[in-house]
Amino acid sequence: MIATRTDLAMEAFENTDGGPLPGVRVGHWETDGIEITEVVVTDNEAARQLGKPKGNYLTLESRLLRERDPDARLAMAALLGEELDRVLPRERANAPVMVVGLGNRSITPDSLGPGVVDRTLVTRHLLGGPLQNASMKSVCAIAPGVLGVTGIESMELVEALARRVEPRAILCVDSLAARDSRRIGCTIQLTDTGIQPGAGVGNHRKALTEQSVGAPVISVGMPTVIYAATLAKDAFAWLNAREGGEEHEAALEDMEKTLLTGELGEMIVTPREIDAIIQDAAGIIASGINRALQPALSDAEIAAMMN
Amino acid sequence: MIATRTDLAMEAFENTDGGPLPGVRVGHWETDGIEITEVVVTDNEAARQLGKPKGNYLTLESRLLRERDPDARLAMAALLGEELDRVLPRERANAPVMVVGLGNRSITPDSLGPGVVDRTLVTRHLLGGPLQNASMKSVCAIAPGVLGVTGIESMELVEALARRVEPRAILCVDSLAARDSRRIGCTIQLTDTGIQPGAGVGNHRKALTEQSVGAPVISVGMPTVIYAATLAKDAFAWLNAREGGEEHEAALEDMEKTLLTGELGEMIVTPREIDAIIQDAAGIIASGINRALQPALSDAEIAAMMN
Amino acid sequence: MIATRTDLAMEAFENTDGGPLPGVRVGHWETDGIEITEVVVTDNEAARQLGKPKGNYLTLESRLLRERDPDARLAMAALLGEELDRVLPRERANAPVMVVGLGNRSITPDSLGPGVVDRTLVTRHLLGGPLQNASMKSVCAIAPGVLGVTGIESMELVEALARRVEPRAILCVDSLAARDSRRIGCTIQLTDTGIQPGAGVGNHRKALTEQSVGAPVISVGMPTVIYAATLAKDAFAWLNAREGGEEHEAALEDMEKTLLTGELGEMIVTPREIDAIIQDAAGIIASGINRALQPALSDAEIAAMMN
Amino acid sequence: MIATRTDLAMEAFENTDGGPLPGVRVGHWETDGIEITEVVVTDNEAARQLGKPKGNYLTLESRLLRERDPDARLAMAALLGEELDRVLPRERANAPVMVVGLGNRSITPDSLGPGVVDRTLVTRHLLGGPLQNASMKSVCAIAPGVLGVTGIESMELVEALARRVEPRAILCVDSLAARDSRRIGCTIQLTDTGIQPGAGVGNHRKALTEQSVGAPVISVGMPTVIYAATLAKDAFAWLNAREGGEEHEAALEDMEKTLLTGELGEMIVTPREIDAIIQDAAGIIASGINRALQPALSDAEIAAMMN
Repeated sequence: MIATRTDLAMEAFENTDGGPLPGVRVGHWETDGIEITEVVVTDNEAARQLGKPKGNYLTLESRLLRERDPDARLAMAALLGEELDRVLPRERANAPVMVVGLGNRSITPDSLGPGVVDRTLVTRHLLGGPLQNASMKSVCAIAPGVLGVTGIESMELVEALARRVEPRAILCVDSLAARDSRRIGCTIQLTDTGIQPGAGVGNHRKALTEQSVGAPVISVGMPTVIYAATLAKDAFAWLNAREGGEEHEAALEDMEKTLLTGELGEMIVTPREIDAIIQDAAGIIASGINRALQPALSDAEIAAMMN
Repeated sequence: MIATRTDLAMEAFENTDGGPLPGVRVGHWETDGIEITEVVVTDNEAARQLGKPKGNYLTLESRLLRERDPDARLAMAALLGEELDRVLPRERANAPVMVVGLGNRSITPDSLGPGVVDRTLVTRHLLGGPLQNASMKSVCAIAPGVLGVTGIESMELVEALARRVEPRAILCVDSLAARDSRRIGCTIQLTDTGIQPGAGVGNHRKALTEQSVGAPVISVGMPTVIYAATLAKDAFAWLNAREGGEEHEAALEDMEKTLLTGELGEMIVTPREIDAIIQDAAGIIASGINRALQPALSDAEIAAMMN
Repeated sequence: MIATRTDLAMEAFENTDGGPLPGVRVGHWETDGIEITEVVVTDNEAARQLGKPKGNYLTLESRLLRERDPDARLAMAALLGEELDRVLPRERANAPVMVVGLGNRSITPDSLGPGVVDRTLVTRHLLGGPLQNASMKSVCAIAPGVLGVTGIESMELVEALARRVEPRAILCVDSLAARDSRRIGCTIQLTDTGIQPGAGVGNHRKALTEQSVGAPVISVGMPTVIYAATLAKDAFAWLNAREGGEEHEAALEDMEKTLLTGELGEMIVTPREIDAIIQDAAGIIASGINRALQPALSDAEIAAMMN
Repeated sequence: MIATRTDLAMEAFENTDGGPLPGVRVGHWETDGIEITEVVVTDNEAARQLGKPKGNYLTLESRLLRERDPDARLAMAALLGEELDRVLPRERANAPVMVVGLGNRSITPDSLGPGVVDRTLVTRHLLGGPLQNASMKSVCAIAPGVLGVTGIESMELVEALARRVEPRAILCVDSLAARDSRRIGCTIQLTDTGIQPGAGVGNHRKALTEQSVGAPVISVGMPTVIYAATLAKDAFAWLNAREGGEEHEAALEDMEKTLLTGELGEMIVTPREIDAIIQDAAGIIASGINRALQPALSDAEIAAMMN
C-alpha cells in the first residue's frame, strides 16, 4: 500500500476520518485575510497515527499569494514575523540565530531554503566591528547544499557549525510536499519539532532536533510539489468513496500497482510557474525572518543593509 | 471533455483504437540500441483525427538516456545527426541554417530550446573573416524568449529575422508534452511539418511553417512534462475500460470536472531531476545538430571552436 | 600614439585643453543632488575633434550611487525618467517604443543592457487583449546578445525587428568605458545621436542611427570600466605636465610602447564590486525607463505588472 | 609607501634586486611545454623579506592557456595532478581529503574556488553504500562563501567541519592577485604553507594552517587580477629606474598619493574575458584534483560519476 505523503500536519490530520483524534488539538482562525490552522500533537499515539512528531504546527494560508497580490505578500510576511518572534527563545538574547536553508539550489522546487538564505540579513560578522549597531541582533545563515554536491550530509554540517557558533536557536527553511495542489505556493507551516528524516522535497536522511544539535530547532516550510503517487492515490480514494467501494476495489489496487510503482512514483506534480513561485516565497519568508530577528530595525534599514 | 494532450505523433496514434488508420503509415525498427518509430500522415482526414498536420514524424527512443548512460548519449547524438542531415535541403548550400530555440529559459521544463542554442556552433559571423574555414557551413542561432518577456511573439521575431538572414532551413528546438511518463527525457521527435499553434510546453500562439517563413521548417523536440490533466484522464480511461464502463461513467465525468478544471488542469508532472535531464538533452541535441550542420568538421574541431 | 578612450562626451571634452571649443556648447547645473552636464556638439569639425557625432549629450552624475544610497537611487531614477520623457518623440504615440539592451550577459561589465531589459515592463503583447489598460503604452524589449553567441550582429537583429515592429523610438542601453574611475557606476549619459561603431564596452561593429533604422535612436549608458591603456596614458600625461616635458618625453613614449601594447592594452580596470554595481544600475535605469514609457502608471502598478 | 601586492612567491622574489637571497632556493625547468619554478623559503628572515611564510612554492606556467589551447589544458591538468599526488600525505589513506573552494561566487574574479568545488568528484557519502567502489577514495568539498554572505568566516566554517570530518589533508583553491598581467589565467601556484591572512583576491582575515586545523593544508591558486595600485606602482618604478631617479622622485611620490589612494587603490585590473578564463581554470584545476585524489579511476569513470 502506497502511503499518502504530505509534510503538512494539517493535511496529515485530514487523512484520518476527520473526527476528533485523542491527543490532537486543532484550532482555526483568520487574521488579515490569512487563514491560520494550529495543530498541537500532545501524545505519542496520535503522533504515530499522523506520522508527525509531538509538538506545535502552525499553518498560515493565503490563496492570494498565487495571484502574486502585493498586499497579501506584505500581510503574510508581517504575520510570519510575529509568529516567529513568539516562538524564538528569550534566553541568551545576544547569541546568534542560525538560519539554515535546506534543499538543493539546482532543483527548482527544492531550492526554497537556499533562496531564503540569500535574502536573510546576516550580521554576526559585524558585531564588535565599526558597522555594529546597538539595536542589531546576531544572525548567521547557511545553505548546506546536498549530499551529492559536497559529500557532507546537510545535518552533519549544521551540527558541526552549531558546535562552533552556539546559536540560541536554529531556524530551518525547507521546501515541502503537500497533498492538495491548491496549497502549493500559498501555505507556510511553522513548527517547533525539528526536522525528521524523510521530510521535505529533498528527503533529508538524518534528523535535526534540539537533542541532536543543542539548540531549539524551529522550521518554516512551504509546499512546492505534490508527489504524483499521492495525487493518484487520492483520486482513487475519491472514486472509491463515491462508488461505494468493494466491488471494484480489486481494480483500484491493480491500478495503483500499475501506475504508481516504478517511474510515476518518483515524479512530482508542480505548477508550470514554479520558478516564479519559489522566488516570491523566498522573498516573503526572508522578510518575515528578518523582521523577527531584527525587531529594532525598520524594513528600510534592513533593505539598506542587505545591499 | 478534456483532451488527452501529447506533442508526440506516435502517442497521438496510440490514442486511436490501435488498428490501422487510413492515411497513416507507421514503421518501427531499431539501430544501435535506439528504437525508431516513423509515422507518416498522408491525408487530411487522418491529420484531423490525430490532431497532427500531414508530414513525417520520426521518433528516436532510448531508455538508457534516463540513466545518463554515456554510450547511449553518443549513439543518440550520432543518429540524430544522420537523420537531420537526411532532411536538410541540398539547395542553397551556402545559405545559413537558422537554429531557433523555442521556450522560456526561466521555466525549467520549457528551457530545452534556449539550452540547445547555447551549445550550437554559430559561424555566420565568421564567414568572410580571417577565421573562415573553407569547410565551415553558415549557421546562426537564436532563442527568441517568450512573449511576456519581450513583448514580441517568438514567431514574429523568427519571421523578421528570416526575412533578413534568408536561411536555407529553419531548425526549431522545443520542449514537448508527452502522455507516457517513460518517454520524458529519452525520446526525440524529428518532424518536417513546422510548428503548430498550441504545441510545445510553452504553447506558442502562432504557427511557424514554410508558408509563413519562406524556408523549410524542421523541428526537433523532446518531451519534458506530462500535463496533470492528461495523466488523470488516462487513469480514468484505464479504469473505465477495465470496469466495463457505463455504470460509473457519470462518476468519472464528475471526477474529471472536479479534479481537472481549475488548479490541477494547469499543473505539470515532471521527474524530480528535470534540471539535469534538460542539461543532458540539450547537450545531445546540440551535438546532433552540430554534426549535421558541419559535416566537414570533426567533433574535436567543433568543441575547440565552441570555447 | 595610443588614444585616450572614453564613451562620455563630457570626458572627451576634457581631453581638449579645456578652453571653449567652437561648435560645442557646455552647460552645468544641479538638481536634487545630481550634477548635470549638457554637451551640445553643433558642427562637424567639433565632432571630429571630440570623436563624438553631432547631437546632445546629457550626463547625470551622483557620487552617492557608489555608496548605494537609497535616496540617491530614487532621485536618479526620477530624473532619468523626466529627461527621457523630454526626448521621446510625441508623434505616433500608440506605436511601441523598442528598448534594446546591448552587451553580453556573460561578461559582467558588459551586461548592463541585458539587465535593464530584464527589468523593463513590456506591454506590446497585452494591447488588444483582456489585460489591456487604457493608460498603458506599448513597449517591447530585446537583448540581442553578441555576435559570437548568435551569429547575427546585434544591429542586424535590431534592424530586422524594427522593420516589423515599426517603433516610434528605439531606446538603447549599453555599458560604457570612462576615463575617470570615479564616474564608474555613478554617471548616466543620455544621447540622441544613436550608437556609433566601436562604442560601448562590447565594441559594436555597426552603427544604429535614425538613418539606418527609420526611428529616432536614444541611448542611455553608464560607465562600468576604464581601459587600462587609458588609465596608464593619463598617468603619463599627468607626470609629463608636472615635470615640464621634453627632456623625458622619449622615456614616456618608450614606456607607453612597452606597457600598453600587447596584453595590457586589452585589459580593463573595474571596481571589485562590479557585479553589485551592475545590479544597482540596471534597477535605476529600468525604473527611469518604465516611468518615462508609462506616464499614466504609478510605480506600484508597474511593480505589480512586472511580477 | 604603497606595497607591491602579489600572491605569487615567484613574483615576490622578483621584487628583490634579483640576486641570490640567503634562505631562498629557486629552481626552473620545463616539462611538456609548461614552465616550472620552484621557490623554497627556508629561513624566517627570507620569509619576512619576501612577505611569504617558510615552505615550498611551485608555479606551473603555460601561456597557451590564455589562447584556450586544448592540448595545453590537458598537459596542465595532468601535471597538476602529478604534483598534487606528490604532496598529499600517505598516512591515513582512507580518511577523506577535504577540498575547500575559497572566494565569492558572485564576484567573478574571486569565484575560482567555488567553480572548482562544483567540478570536484565528491565520494565521502557513497562509501559504505551500494555505489561504493573499492578503488574510490573519500573526498568531500565545500565552498564556504564569504563573511558578508553567511555571517561566518570561511576559516571558522572550515575548522568546524574539519573537526567533524577529520580529513587527512585540506586542499584549498583560491583566486590570487599577480603583479604581471601575463600571468593571469595561465599560472597555477601550489604551496604547502597554508593560507595566510590577507592573501587571495577575497582577502581572508584568518589563517588556515596545519596548526589551526589539525591537518596538512595544501593550496592551489591562479592569478585572476592585478591590483590597480600595484600596476601603477610598477610603472613608476620602471620610469624612475630608467630616468636615473632622485630629481623627480618627489613628483613620483606625489603622483602615487594622488592616483593610488582613494578610488583607484580599490580597483582591479582584469582581462575582459575574465568570466571565460575562470571557467577554463576551474575545469583544469578540478581535473588535476580529481586525478590526484582518485588515482584508481580513469578520466572517463570520473566524468561518468560527475553526472
